Amino acid sequence: MASKGSSSSSIPITPLLKDELDIVIPTIRNLEFLEMWRPFFQPYHLIIVQDGDPSKTIKVPEGFDYELYNRNDINRILGPKASCISFKDSACRCFGYMVSKKKYIYTIDDDCFAINALEQHVKNLLSPSTPFFFNTLYDPYREGADFVRGYPFSLREGVKTAVSHGLWLNIPDYDAPTQLVKPRERNQRYVDAVLTIPKGTLFPMCGMNLAFDRELIGPAMYFGLMGDGQPIGRYDDMWAGWCVKVICDHLALGVKTGLPYIWHSKASNPFVNLKKEYNGIFWQEEIIPFFQTAVLTKECSTVQKCYIELSKQVREKLGKIDPYFSKLADAMVTWIEAWDELNPSGDIAEAANAPAKGKK
Amino acid sequence: MASKGSSSSSIPITPLLKDELDIVIPTIRNLEFLEMWRPFFQPYHLIIVQDGDPSKTIKVPEGFDYELYNRNDINRILGPKASCISFKDSACRCFGYMVSKKKYIYTIDDDCFAINALEQHVKNLLSPSTPFFFNTLYDPYREGADFVRGYPFSLREGVKTAVSHGLWLNIPDYDAPTQLVKPRERNQRYVDAVLTIPKGTLFPMCGMNLAFDRELIGPAMYFGLMGDGQPIGRYDDMWAGWCVKVICDHLALGVKTGLPYIWHSKASNPFVNLKKEYNGIFWQEEIIPFFQTAVLTKECSTVQKCYIELSKQVREKLGKIDPYFSKLADAMVTWIEAWDELNPSGDIAEAANAPAKGKK
Repeated sequence: MASKGSSSSSIPITPLLKDELDIVIPTIRNLEFLEMWRPFFQPYHLIIVQDGDPSKTIKVPEGFDYELYNRNDINRILGPKASCISFKDSACRCFGYMVSKKKYIYTIDDDCFAINALEQHVKNLLSPSTPFFFNTLYDPYREGADFVRGYPFSLREGVKTAVSHGLWLNIPDYDAPTQLVKPRERNQRYVDAVLTIPKGTLFPMCGMNLAFDRELIGPAMYFGLMGDGQPIGRYDDMWAGWCVKVICDHLALGVKTGLPYIWHSKASNPFVNLKKEYNGIFWQEEIIPFFQTAVLTKECSTVQKCYIELSKQVREKLGKIDPYFSKLADAMVTWIEAWDELNPSGDIAEAANAPAKGKK
Repeated sequence: MASKGSSSSSIPITPLLKDELDIVIPTIRNLEFLEMWRPFFQPYHLIIVQDGDPSKTIKVPEGFDYELYNRNDINRILGPKASCISFKDSACRCFGYMVSKKKYIYTIDDDCFAINALEQHVKNLLSPSTPFFFNTLYDPYREGADFVRGYPFSLREGVKTAVSHGLWLNIPDYDAPTQLVKPRERNQRYVDAVLTIPKGTLFPMCGMNLAFDRELIGPAMYFGLMGDGQPIGRYDDMWAGWCVKVICDHLALGVKTGLPYIWHSKASNPFVNLKKEYNGIFWQEEIIPFFQTAVLTKECSTVQKCYIELSKQVREKLGKIDPYFSKLADAMVTWIEAWDELNPSGDIAEAANAPAKGKK
């Protein structure tokens, strides 16, 4: 099967994974932007998660193969477990990860222009990662590149890649303070590289241009409780990134960053952003040391088990910062329960019951 | 003083450190290659380490400010301690690091064409590093870049940069097996990025295009025992890189890699290389786990103390692989003794005696 993460260093003409990849887009806007993406996205199945007022009708341009979920749909499908899905925040997109039936997910913001990013993401996901030792010529599996002198031979097979994190030209992904201080800064540098983020190193994962292997890491890709009714926003992808990286490190899975770029056309409002980020700016100073030192035991042999264990540690160690983290820990458990309910088959099912039992 | 590693994120017009930087070049060839480098190197002081037959006279083109050391000079200056300096191997270059009186060193192989690499190295060394968290837009101190959303604010001051590791276009720095398998591969990709190698991650440090801060890390920049009379070659820079990275991680110093590139014109002979590398290919499979798990205690508060402690661990843990490592451990101690003898003043002297006492 071509889609099983092969560890060969020569990538054949890449299958675009047409039938194995879903594109997940969170939106509150009209879907005219899809017109721009038609050349790249039309062959794929789209999962559109409509945020905000569910009574609003959103038009989808003709010719796209899509399913669209609004808040009423989410409530109907998940019942009381819908509480783990954020409202009025792009964090709601992770509902799309859960209802997908495909192996791969690509997610992108609706204010980005995709410059055929998908092909590079697919290449990233289908070639191995090298988290245990740094290769100075970047991705060693890329054509024209290899491992440099001194790279241990025993590590050259690499490990499976779970996440491909793409970057942004034009409007960079800055926090509110940086947006306020540098309103005119644009990212104009195209860095022609993909690299594995080394084991033990955390990174700020942005949801704007992100692809991942649902089978390998899906249950950890939870974007948390953000937005409406929550004391924090704009940390949805960060939260997922910290959890995902700790779990990938534990399970020996790879996370890549770099190419592809998308064109990010519109800066969000820094004043609105500051309000959303305010608490996160303080909290992350404690959250990051927490994730840097989090230890998962050998018993955590599946993503679900890892995630439930992390939720316990979140409750225990971050609960002191603010009651929000106890609520978040509950939501992490609910998320896994909902995930397993909607994804009952295969390996995932095997692991499904253990974490649910471990809830209390 | 402009040359004190400033942690400001705005770099003023970079001083080229004319009076604070030495260029160290190991060579066995005629020095006509210097002609190519005249525009970039003429303002600087050169330290040329002549390898091989010391009776051979090497001509230096006119107009360069240089000092040249051959084996007789090394023996005369270091006496019995000259045993720690390799012969018939580019590892001999580290003698130049020791006799320099400058704060910064740039070292380059004599078969490389420097495309004004120095300016970028100086920028790298004078701006901070960020080893504790990965910035997805690469060097945040570069013009037009910054820390992205989610990067902890408490880590944005960065740490002092000890090492700037540059890359190579054209002939990549491959090991003998890769050279044999891919004789025609050329590195044609210019990646416009500098990044900090995260804490806890080792990398293959190549000596072909390397700059460092002698005051911060000089005593750890020992290129080991290689070449003539030794069972191994072409691991000189690798050895230094492993030691340097472990010590930088311990002392919270930064190591950067990426820009600048040099043009590497001539591939070395893969058959000769295989003979030199043969043992290293096996040994590094044990050496790298050794360095990955090496722990330095709080008492190791200077580079010298760290290095002496590492030498003890090398003797104890790598001595089992081959008697060579006991000899290397001895040479590491001798190197520090010689370093302190030739560099008796300032902070370095303060630390000088402790490790010497700790020898046995």
